[in-house]
Parts: sequence; structure tokens; C-alpha cells
Amino acid sequence: MAETTGKLRIAMLAPISWPAPPTSYGPWEKVVWNLTEELVARGHHVTLFAAAGSRSSAELVETVPHPLQMWPEAERRAPERLDPESGLLAGPPDFRALEQQHIAICLEAARDGRFDVIHSHLHVHTLVFSRLISTPMVHSLHGAAWVEALHPVFDRYREQAYVSLSDAERQFKPDLNYVATVYNGIRLEEFPLGTEKEDYLLFAGRLSPEKGPDRAVQIAHRAGRPLRLAGIIEPQHRQFFDEKVKPHLDDQSVAYLGCLPQKELAKQYQRAAAVLFPISWCEPCSWVGIEAQASGTPIIGTRYGYLPELIREGETGFIVDTAEEAAAAVDRVGELDPQACRANVEARFSVRVMASGYERVFRKVIGNTRVTGR
Amino acid sequence: MAETTGKLRIAMLAPISWPAPPTSYGPWEKVVWNLTEELVARGHHVTLFAAAGSRSSAELVETVPHPLQMWPEAERRAPERLDPESGLLAGPPDFRALEQQHIAICLEAARDGRFDVIHSHLHVHTLVFSRLISTPMVHSLHGAAWVEALHPVFDRYREQAYVSLSDAERQFKPDLNYVATVYNGIRLEEFPLGTEKEDYLLFAGRLSPEKGPDRAVQIAHRAGRPLRLAGIIEPQHRQFFDEKVKPHLDDQSVAYLGCLPQKELAKQYQRAAAVLFPISWCEPCSWVGIEAQASGTPIIGTRYGYLPELIREGETGFIVDTAEEAAAAVDRVGELDPQACRANVEARFSVRVMASGYERVFRKVIGNTRVTGR
Repeated sequence: MAETTGKLRIAMLAPISWPAPPTSYGPWEKVVWNLTEELVARGHHVTLFAAAGSRSSAELVETVPHPLQMWPEAERRAPERLDPESGLLAGPPDFRALEQQHIAICLEAARDGRFDVIHSHLHVHTLVFSRLISTPMVHSLHGAAWVEALHPVFDRYREQAYVSLSDAERQFKPDLNYVATVYNGIRLEEFPLGTEKEDYLLFAGRLSPEKGPDRAVQIAHRAGRPLRLAGIIEPQHRQFFDEKVKPHLDDQSVAYLGCLPQKELAKQYQRAAAVLFPISWCEPCSWVGIEAQASGTPIIGTRYGYLPELIREGETGFIVDTAEEAAAAVDRVGELDPQACRANVEARFSVRVMASGYERVFRKVIGNTRVTGR
Repeated sequence: MAETTGKLRIAMLAPISWPAPPTSYGPWEKVVWNLTEELVARGHHVTLFAAAGSRSSAELVETVPHPLQMWPEAERRAPERLDPESGLLAGPPDFRALEQQHIAICLEAARDGRFDVIHSHLHVHTLVFSRLISTPMVHSLHGAAWVEALHPVFDRYREQAYVSLSDAERQFKPDLNYVATVYNGIRLEEFPLGTEKEDYLLFAGRLSPEKGPDRAVQIAHRAGRPLRLAGIIEPQHRQFFDEKVKPHLDDQSVAYLGCLPQKELAKQYQRAAAVLFPISWCEPCSWVGIEAQASGTPIIGTRYGYLPELIREGETGFIVDTAEEAAAAVDRVGELDPQACRANVEARFSVRVMASGYERVFRKVIGNTRVTGR
């Protein structure tokens, strides 16, 4: 019985691009933080290995002095130069070395059997260490197998225990040893239900080509509705934004709100008639869809990634294949019940459901390890 | 007695930028190859972990399909793009992931006690794994601690067994656990002695600011001698070359020969009146100085790095502090005996001496490990 009810000693190996929880963008760190808090609340002993600036109810081990994406600008942009004083090559920090050391700090702490399980969110960077320690490991993929260049490493460590964030995510690399799908889980109190809707449509998320903000503009135009866009514009997608989205901002009906703080974004979700999610890639388990549904907002999305798993067709949103279908779906969103959208998240995408999913995974890999002796 | 005479089982973990031996540039791979061949000749069982395209008398494990610097151009320059067929992000290879996997392949092979010692030439990239395996490790630095950004990792693994390639190299990071200095060792037959000298001066090595090809031009002008420059121009130093060196090539007395094959370079050494080595950084143990001396050629060099250890002042070359002193030294090189230069290398910088040095290091760390139990 202890196998299914006992408290676990868990090493949680977070990404270090952002703090946990992230102050703004940082979806992977957010999964880690939500999960860690819920596991601690359930009585597990969790040690969180994360960047300085993180906070946690778990035991926190800060492995790097700053999150990599928030490293002080002066140090980050330091030019390479021979320092005549020290004789050393001065320059910017080496993020690769720091990230490898971050992982090593966690795995070294595991050597004396201090943890029952290690939960890594750093995919191939942790995989290369995986056969050198005896503590069982679980690897959440977060879409990393999307990047074909990483497949040689995944191929070598195929037998490790992988968690896909949706069933759809497995299509990136179907031949890995998947032990479960565990959806990202939201803290429902962070995204209150909104039952009073306005007429605008909302696009949220990174404004990159595969997310389809340009397609959202087309759909909104076709449906004759105002559109609001919220999300980060990464440097590599600035040109895409300038060419495909920005020209439409002159139009009074399309507004770019920037990358909103979570509370502001929550308000946008609550009052939106629908969230447009016209992706053209296999989105594994984006927060946007879950947050929208938690806020009582229907989703109109394409047949990609986790959307067919997330959306209850005709009940919490619509899956569409064309801009015409999307525009037609916009006309029908008034038929959908905000309560049904929220219930969808409560039942399948809450932190409680996520933590239960990972508890089962942890016990499974620990059990397997005891049986096989490794 | 077995402790000091027994045959060892050695894992040799090479860098993978170039094959071992390198076909052209590749100084670290050359050290590894020279050492491996000599250790095998002495009866040790060596397993060489290296890039495909390497050859060895040792057992060869090819861990990556191409040396990273010789990766097929089309794959290397592949643009990042969403492949509509596979749904994957196609793009160039991930060298970081491949290098980490290269190291992991070696260390995983060590798990069952198959090796007595692991000799790593990949510094911090191997250090992060070092506490997760029980096989003792030796780390040759190759100047890596020059890069200040790597110091946080060196700090964490200070207690590992380090080999400096010269006493001078230790100044980059004096607080590491140095177990020995072992100079790079040359295969003397590759650089035949030349006793008939011409009047030209030679600069060999990478044409980068800290190597001082521009200072070599000044010295040659001042001494009124022709100068030949041979070596690789790296992309990041192209502008330096164009501004500081190229303008002097109009002058008939200064010639750039390109990056020469070893046999061609050997001929240049043999007939040079002297090799100019006006570095402004702590060169740990460059091949150039050793090759020049093996060829019977005096060195005129600055008071940096391994030069004061290499040069027998007034016998095999001169240490100088200014261009004036250098020019004055040029006038005196005729007094030096080519045989003395070669004898200097035979006594201290041969593969035999290097292999004996590493044998002592290996036995020392193996002995320490047996005593301390780790």
C-alpha cells in the first residue's frame, strides 16, 4: 500500500531560462512551479533545482545566480577581450556550461539515494547523464522532440521514461518509451470564470508564424469582429510581425496589446467572445488554450497538436480546417456555455489532475526500478 | 610492482572538432593522437573515443558521424524551417547535444569498470559528469581555463586531477588540483632537422591578435629580413588580418603562405633563420614552438606562456620584451646550433617523454583512488 500512498522524495529539475514561477513569459517554468507547489501540498518532499530568483514551498536549490534570459545585460553583452590584468579571455557568460552544471548539481545530490525519483524538464541535456545514476528519472518533453537535430540523442536514450504533454506530442518521436500523457495543469484561481462576453476575438501566445497571428487577423476580418493580440514578439519573429501583422494594426478593429501580465491577460480571456488558435504546428500543450477555457471562453482552433484533445467539439469550442469554417464558427460561439469550458479544465487540466498524473508516473517508474534492479 | 609497470586500460576521450589525427588544423586532436599511438606501442589497452574519420592503433569508438568542423556544409547551413511532411523543425545539427552525447558514450562504457582511467580533453564539458562515475579521471586543460566564463564550472570541480600543458598555463586558474605538467610531445620523425638555413623569418600559427602576426611584421621590418606567415585565418580574425597584416603583403619581403599541410610547413621550419613567436597571451603549449625547435630552428619569442619554459636562452632561442630586442636577437641567431634546438625537443617534448609523463599521472590517480576508495 505504501507503493500507492507513501510520500515521495522528489528532485524537480527545472529549466533555468526564467525563474520559477516566471514573472512574465516562461511556460516550462510555470508547469514546474505549479506541479511543485501541488506536490508539496500533498505532503511529498520536493527539492526544486532552479535559477536564483525562484521561490517555492519546496526545498529550493538555486544553481545559477540569474535566470539565463534575465542575466544582467552588461554581463550578457560583454565583448570578448583579452584582459591584460588577469591574462584571461573576458566575455559573456557561457550558458551551455552553466546549464550543464545546473543539471550536474541535481544529479550529484541524488548519488546517495536521497531521492526516490528525479523529474527532469531539460530533455536531451539531462538524458546524456541518465545512465550514470541509479535513481529513476522521468522526462517531461515540453515539445523538445519537435527539433529534429535533437533526435540522435533521443534515439540513444529511447528507453528512458518519457511523459508527453499531450497524446499529439508523441508524433514528433513516436518510438520513445512513453509512460504517460500528463496535461499541463492550471491553478484555477489564477484564471477566474467570465460569463459576460464582449464581441472581440482574442489571440494569445508568441507571435510566431506557426502560431498563426496573421491567420487570426484574416479570420477576424472575415467574421467582421474586432481582434486583440497579446503575447511576446521574439527577435527572430520581428520581421514576420512587421510584415504580416503590423500593417493591420492601422485598422481600428485589430489591436496589439503587448505581452500582458497574467492578471491583465486573465481579464482579456474573461470577456472575449472566443479565443482564436489557428496554429500550423503540433502545439504540445500550450497554456493559452487551458487558460482560455478556464476563463469560460470557447476556442476556435485548427486540427493540430493538443487542440482536438482539449476542445470538446460544439461544447467548449470548434475545430476548423479553413478560415471560412473559422468565421462560421465565430457566429456560433454564443451557443456555447462558459461553465462547460471551465468544467473541461477542472476535470482534465487542473494542477490537481496534473499532480495525480505525475504521482502515478513516479510510482510506476520507482516500481519498475525496484523490480528490474536498476 | 604492477602499480608502476602493469599495462593500463585507458579510455581516451578526444575532442571531436577534427579527426584524430587531424588532416590539417586540430592541435588538441593531434596531442590525443600522438599520445594514443605511443601508449598503444607501450602495450597499454587504449580505447579512443573520437569523431568518425579518425584512425588509430587503439580500439576506436566513433561517436559522431563527422568531426564537427568538417560537417557536410549543406547540413551545417540548413535553414531552420517547419517541415510540413514530418511536422518537425528541420535545421542544422546541434553540436552542443552531439558533444555531450560523445562524452556520455565514453562514460557509459566505463560504468562496468572496463577502464582503469579516463583521460578527458574536453575540460568543463566532461567535468560536469565527473562525480557520477567511479573510474578515476584525468583532465588535460589545453588552455581552456583561459576563458573566464568557464571558471564557475572549474571552481565546482577544483578537486579533479588536472594536467597543465606547461607550468605557465596554471596562471589561468591557479587553485585547481594540478597533478602534473606534461608538455605536448612531438613525433620527431615528422619534423626532420634542418641545418642549412636561409635568411627568412617565419611566423606560424593562427593569425589572431594574441599570436602577434602584426608584431612579427614589425620585427622583420626592423631586422631587415623577409618574413613568411603560415597559418589559419579564423572568420572572427579576418578583419584583424585585413587591417593589420594584409597591407604589408604588397611589400615583396612579407609573404602569406596560407595554412600549409604539415609536410610543407616542416620544410619552412627547416630552412628558416628563426621562428618569430611574439605572443601577448599565455600560450599553454603550442605545437609551433616545439615543431620549430625539432626542425633545428631557434625561436625569438616574448615572455609569455610556455616560451620561457621551452626556450633555452641563448642556446635554442631568445626571450625578448620589445621589437628592438627582437630585431637585435635576429642578428644573433646564426650563433645558435640547430642540433641544440633538436636536442631540447628530444629531451623534453617528444611523444616518449609525454607518454611517460601521462603514465605517471595515470598511475598516481589510480593509486589515489584505490587508497581513498573513490
